Amino acid sequence: MATIVAAEVFVTSPGRNYVTLRLTTSDGVTGIGDATLNGRELSVASYLRDHVCPTLIGQEADRIEHIWQYLYKGAYWRRGPVTMTAIAAVDVALWDIKGKVAGLPVYQLLGGAVRDGVTVYGHASGNTVPQLLDDVQRFLGRGFRAVRAQAAVPGLERVYGMRKGDGVTYEPADGALPTEEVWDTGAYLDFVPTYMAAVREKFGYGFQLLHDAHHRLSPIEAGRLGKSLEPYRMFWIEDPTPAEDQEAFRLIRQHTTTPLAVGEIFNSIWDCQYLITNRLIDYIRTSVSHAGGISHLRKIFSLAELYGVRTGSHGAGDLSPASFAAALHVDLSVPNFGMQEYMEHMPGYEEVFTTSWRFEDGLMHPGDRPGIGVEFDEQAAARFPYERKYLPVNRLRDGSVHDW
Amino acid sequence: MATIVAAEVFVTSPGRNYVTLRLTTSDGVTGIGDATLNGRELSVASYLRDHVCPTLIGQEADRIEHIWQYLYKGAYWRRGPVTMTAIAAVDVALWDIKGKVAGLPVYQLLGGAVRDGVTVYGHASGNTVPQLLDDVQRFLGRGFRAVRAQAAVPGLERVYGMRKGDGVTYEPADGALPTEEVWDTGAYLDFVPTYMAAVREKFGYGFQLLHDAHHRLSPIEAGRLGKSLEPYRMFWIEDPTPAEDQEAFRLIRQHTTTPLAVGEIFNSIWDCQYLITNRLIDYIRTSVSHAGGISHLRKIFSLAELYGVRTGSHGAGDLSPASFAAALHVDLSVPNFGMQEYMEHMPGYEEVFTTSWRFEDGLMHPGDRPGIGVEFDEQAAARFPYERKYLPVNRLRDGSVHDW
Amino acid sequence: MATIVAAEVFVTSPGRNYVTLRLTTSDGVTGIGDATLNGRELSVASYLRDHVCPTLIGQEADRIEHIWQYLYKGAYWRRGPVTMTAIAAVDVALWDIKGKVAGLPVYQLLGGAVRDGVTVYGHASGNTVPQLLDDVQRFLGRGFRAVRAQAAVPGLERVYGMRKGDGVTYEPADGALPTEEVWDTGAYLDFVPTYMAAVREKFGYGFQLLHDAHHRLSPIEAGRLGKSLEPYRMFWIEDPTPAEDQEAFRLIRQHTTTPLAVGEIFNSIWDCQYLITNRLIDYIRTSVSHAGGISHLRKIFSLAELYGVRTGSHGAGDLSPASFAAALHVDLSVPNFGMQEYMEHMPGYEEVFTTSWRFEDGLMHPGDRPGIGVEFDEQAAARFPYERKYLPVNRLRDGSVHDW
Amino acid sequence: MATIVAAEVFVTSPGRNYVTLRLTTSDGVTGIGDATLNGRELSVASYLRDHVCPTLIGQEADRIEHIWQYLYKGAYWRRGPVTMTAIAAVDVALWDIKGKVAGLPVYQLLGGAVRDGVTVYGHASGNTVPQLLDDVQRFLGRGFRAVRAQAAVPGLERVYGMRKGDGVTYEPADGALPTEEVWDTGAYLDFVPTYMAAVREKFGYGFQLLHDAHHRLSPIEAGRLGKSLEPYRMFWIEDPTPAEDQEAFRLIRQHTTTPLAVGEIFNSIWDCQYLITNRLIDYIRTSVSHAGGISHLRKIFSLAELYGVRTGSHGAGDLSPASFAAALHVDLSVPNFGMQEYMEHMPGYEEVFTTSWRFEDGLMHPGDRPGIGVEFDEQAAARFPYERKYLPVNRLRDGSVHDW
Repeated sequence: MATIVAAEVFVTSPGRNYVTLRLTTSDGVTGIGDATLNGRELSVASYLRDHVCPTLIGQEADRIEHIWQYLYKGAYWRRGPVTMTAIAAVDVALWDIKGKVAGLPVYQLLGGAVRDGVTVYGHASGNTVPQLLDDVQRFLGRGFRAVRAQAAVPGLERVYGMRKGDGVTYEPADGALPTEEVWDTGAYLDFVPTYMAAVREKFGYGFQLLHDAHHRLSPIEAGRLGKSLEPYRMFWIEDPTPAEDQEAFRLIRQHTTTPLAVGEIFNSIWDCQYLITNRLIDYIRTSVSHAGGISHLRKIFSLAELYGVRTGSHGAGDLSPASFAAALHVDLSVPNFGMQEYMEHMPGYEEVFTTSWRFEDGLMHPGDRPGIGVEFDEQAAARFPYERKYLPVNRLRDGSVHDW
Repeated sequence: MATIVAAEVFVTSPGRNYVTLRLTTSDGVTGIGDATLNGRELSVASYLRDHVCPTLIGQEADRIEHIWQYLYKGAYWRRGPVTMTAIAAVDVALWDIKGKVAGLPVYQLLGGAVRDGVTVYGHASGNTVPQLLDDVQRFLGRGFRAVRAQAAVPGLERVYGMRKGDGVTYEPADGALPTEEVWDTGAYLDFVPTYMAAVREKFGYGFQLLHDAHHRLSPIEAGRLGKSLEPYRMFWIEDPTPAEDQEAFRLIRQHTTTPLAVGEIFNSIWDCQYLITNRLIDYIRTSVSHAGGISHLRKIFSLAELYGVRTGSHGAGDLSPASFAAALHVDLSVPNFGMQEYMEHMPGYEEVFTTSWRFEDGLMHPGDRPGIGVEFDEQAAARFPYERKYLPVNRLRDGSVHDW
Repeated sequence: MATIVAAEVFVTSPGRNYVTLRLTTSDGVTGIGDATLNGRELSVASYLRDHVCPTLIGQEADRIEHIWQYLYKGAYWRRGPVTMTAIAAVDVALWDIKGKVAGLPVYQLLGGAVRDGVTVYGHASGNTVPQLLDDVQRFLGRGFRAVRAQAAVPGLERVYGMRKGDGVTYEPADGALPTEEVWDTGAYLDFVPTYMAAVREKFGYGFQLLHDAHHRLSPIEAGRLGKSLEPYRMFWIEDPTPAEDQEAFRLIRQHTTTPLAVGEIFNSIWDCQYLITNRLIDYIRTSVSHAGGISHLRKIFSLAELYGVRTGSHGAGDLSPASFAAALHVDLSVPNFGMQEYMEHMPGYEEVFTTSWRFEDGLMHPGDRPGIGVEFDEQAAARFPYERKYLPVNRLRDGSVHDW
Repeated sequence: MATIVAAEVFVTSPGRNYVTLRLTTSDGVTGIGDATLNGRELSVASYLRDHVCPTLIGQEADRIEHIWQYLYKGAYWRRGPVTMTAIAAVDVALWDIKGKVAGLPVYQLLGGAVRDGVTVYGHASGNTVPQLLDDVQRFLGRGFRAVRAQAAVPGLERVYGMRKGDGVTYEPADGALPTEEVWDTGAYLDFVPTYMAAVREKFGYGFQLLHDAHHRLSPIEAGRLGKSLEPYRMFWIEDPTPAEDQEAFRLIRQHTTTPLAVGEIFNSIWDCQYLITNRLIDYIRTSVSHAGGISHLRKIFSLAELYGVRTGSHGAGDLSPASFAAALHVDLSVPNFGMQEYMEHMPGYEEVFTTSWRFEDGLMHPGDRPGIGVEFDEQAAARFPYERKYLPVNRLRDGSVHDW
């Protein structure tokens, strides 16, 4: 059996920081996995380089689940974003290797395609409602079947999630120290229904419309938001409240039939078990790279399938092409897929990562290269050294730190 | 992509009846799956031949989960033993094909081995306690680390699950019409602890001891049995009560810490969801061939993992070598494996089925042939035509039909 | 005692496929039962002919419950559509015999009539709203007191459940291979309330209005649908979500007072126990022929009575006249009857099946012939050989198989 | 207001690895916090040094809760061992500073002492029962009022938690790569009651007897263990099962009145909320350094008080003197204190850490130096460079990784 002979960690910043793990087997096969944790990149790099990589050398590369269990149970200290992102990188790299050994794209190892392609949604935003409408038009014109709509809130200086300038995408982690934003829930609750009405009035109901509340509401506020958006038949409201308090979703649920999505900050099946098994959400948005890799994510999605919850993979720009590709392989193969976020990577990434995915008529496909279909260029990566960057911090008007 | 060009069903009886599905792809690769449902074989054969096979021709062979969903959801009439056994046969045949295409044993596609081998238990039995002790000795002498012990009950003419004569194994489906047995729960409850005491006294506690109650007890009777066996530290009591009434297990659970196992008659994750998610059992014994195949069984086992329930795959002789091999591939790859039943096949099977598994030091391994590792010989099969056979029927002393 | 001396299975296709079991006693009395499972007919025929019939010969024909237990418990592999449809056929045939022996219609053996007649609903449909209104008019004009309304969804090429052309009824199983439909939940949810409004606006509230969602919604979508239909005072929404996940109905329930009905795909009391005992539905729609026959169905309806749930028997055209008649006998005799579906059989059926039921002023009556009141003409049946037919398969826009 | 002007991270290995954070204010006051995560030390060091420390400079040192919220909510990626250990180090260092500024030991800022001293338990172990009895004697002789007893299991080569040789303590993280152990639950369950009987027989019931199951049991096995130990009136069984599955404790609870303790691997109040509010445990064992610091631990203990759960702080040698001292301050001040683990540090630690705690008559006291009472010697620390060390990994006899 081929064993792991090298485990290397690369930190590179082509447009934004990415941490990449590369494993090499005694047969010369390589696989890569994404270990990026936005704003905490070097901690994961250390977790891998200093603690995980030494234990991988000599292990049989084909024993993916075994190595997962070894890293999860063997660490003693389980769960959490740093740990699970590190394990995810190992897991994806091993699936990449297994696909190459089998000569098959990873989705084939996961049971094959259950759909023609993966429906993705884009991030439309605007500092004004007309700008938002233009941005929605931009996505619909490109063939997107689903669009997330966010507008700046009148009276607030900065609102998270706005595209800056003319770029096709944007990067939320925008400072060498955390920038600060001021938040006002009341103003937000009043404003959102007005722009959703404008979107539906202009573009009709022939596409899916999504919204992200960024964990900033209390449960009863989220219930109000959901109810106020019912006429616009939202595909989902994402991250309505801080998600540690899973039972709180029951309160939202009592007040609205607007579907709920959550999970990008979850790191294991334990973080979403209660929400799923109590059917408090409609879409589980855990990601390959922050929720333990393909092996673990499939278990989460399989649990969700049993409870009638569909998937809604996180796909922000801070997931490197390696984990975005891995997500597409999973999306293509799970029966209860719902929706994939697609926030395009910042220009420059393609110098470091060669991808095989394709976007056509609103659907994405991971392509048919063996493995996950993404190649990493070590030399190019060296040209983009790490730059310390943080996500912003959110405050209320009295200066207190608010939920993100 | 290779498509399915042939879907053939074979019924053969080398020692006992087996139904085998063979799929062939446009690339000439073949895969087999077991569709045997003991005593109802021809109904599954018809389900496949008359209704499923025509819909398979032309489908892409690599889309295993898709075809599963197509057969499960498309049938409209879901679940149940006939339906799920038929779907299982298709699923296993497709995994067999995928393994051959990838050049890998199926367990490698399932994430690789998480253990060196699969612990199996054998069926020791005796018409008297001394005979039982001899039989336990026979298994321990062959290296088994786990033994199921069943003895005839004094005063009952026939008791299910006894080996006849000197054969290494036995066949429960023993009549062209159902044979009938008479059952007495009181006599059984009094007798079992005495022979378990004898077994532990003679052989000690250095191996796992199991017992099967064949669904014949009421919940409170099962509680009593479990409590009375606690000194003998059973690995499990299997099938204590009829399993449609899942909440009934809570009553057993209140009375004993003897572990409980159930599931060989379950056909889908829905049949065991309540038992697993309420932690009313310790081992889930669903089989590859009666619970929807590898694709579905993995979902069941993944759910069980989340709830601290380990697996205990059914492995009676009525699972053909094709599904027993498939079970070994799953066993080797799931982290929460607990125990595999190994009731050897009746002599003659090896003329029809060439297997690659191996037994060593109490552990089994599926072998490393691509696919599931079992080849089916159509010509040999034709020499063993179907013979109608039934499992026995169980009555109480007043003549009424009792739970099996 | 008269024993069973013949057990014969007939497959015939007068307009659609029907499987009929005929039992003959040593006294020369015959009884029939329906064993049709739409799209899986021959598998049930085999289950009966190859496995059940041999065990019936020589049994005492008057021991209906005993034979039920013998077939259910003795098979070992319990439940599921094929098994329970086969058992149902035996059960109904034995009730037919018992009625003839007693010289009484079956409903008299079930305790006698508790109502004058059985309220039935017809299937109105339309490819446009005006067509739907015409079709509702057609049923109201014939005296129906209850109508199910379904319209094609704008933008979808085919929608299940539409009557084709001018026939009085239609046959959903329409292809020698499964035809495929594409589904869009969003478009459906937007459209249904508009045509229900049109129906109520034109015809008022003086009749019962029903709707069938064909299991296609998620729980929260079903909640939304129910809420949006509240102004039109629906009698029920049928099959809102896939029904394996019974706890999911609680979520629908939280959002709407529109009554819920489910059960045509259930095969035993175990499949509906949770829904009934938790009062998550208002009508239980299990059928005689798919839920184990008259003996078992009475137990389900009796449980429902205890929990304030009324009955709503399935009555699609794929239930042969034998089971439709049996349903009328049950309907007439249970105190908690709610509604009976009446989807007329395809022209031609009356050559094979002579019936005694009558429809008058919106009510049906099974008639007073001894037994179930349906005679089967073996010679006529032979003129309509089996034709392989399937129900359609449902896909989402991304090509994945959707719930039916 | 004094602001933070320096935030430095030190990794040192006096006997074992410790990560220490030192904060310095513009007034020249320093405070220290422990950031050690056994076997993953450098990842936490990076989390602090690369990502947290830059954001601390310039913050007002007296806003402890505010900084906690800033780090917890601002990181976006919440919870988990690495994150919460890093935050804990900042929190403890700030409490140390606040104590020094006030001229008071930290327990005074927490409300003052509610008891004279903190009951601690020591770790007695033995490779044989006589050795265990000697070790228990050793602790009782030193005045301990509570002793944890663990013995090697016959037939197992290595068992976790055994003291090696003659040292007063031991270090579980014993290899530059993880050492491996083989585990057998059956043998363990049979053996433990025999040595607890021996301990009680020899030393009587005049002291508290504890036991740690190291998460290795299934719930039903834990129930069996608890029941079998009831005659020996255990103070608690610690970590009976893997603790992600909190509902599983209910099953243990049904079978035994032996008190249960868990929590050393929990990192936040969310990890123990269910266990506490459902009263599934008797002692919550979260630690200052792994559960977010003094500020967060107080909230956990306050919740526990409400539900009648007492505290049982983790106190293994991998908590540096800085966090062990912090734990004593908390223990002294919370009304529902139960028990403090005291596993002495490896010789050599006192060169780096000067402590003020004292042990007398079985009770410990943190001392009355301002702050937490521990001084860190940077120069001494430099003499003990980091050595890569891991906790062992646990396997079953079939080679699979077992719960730790």
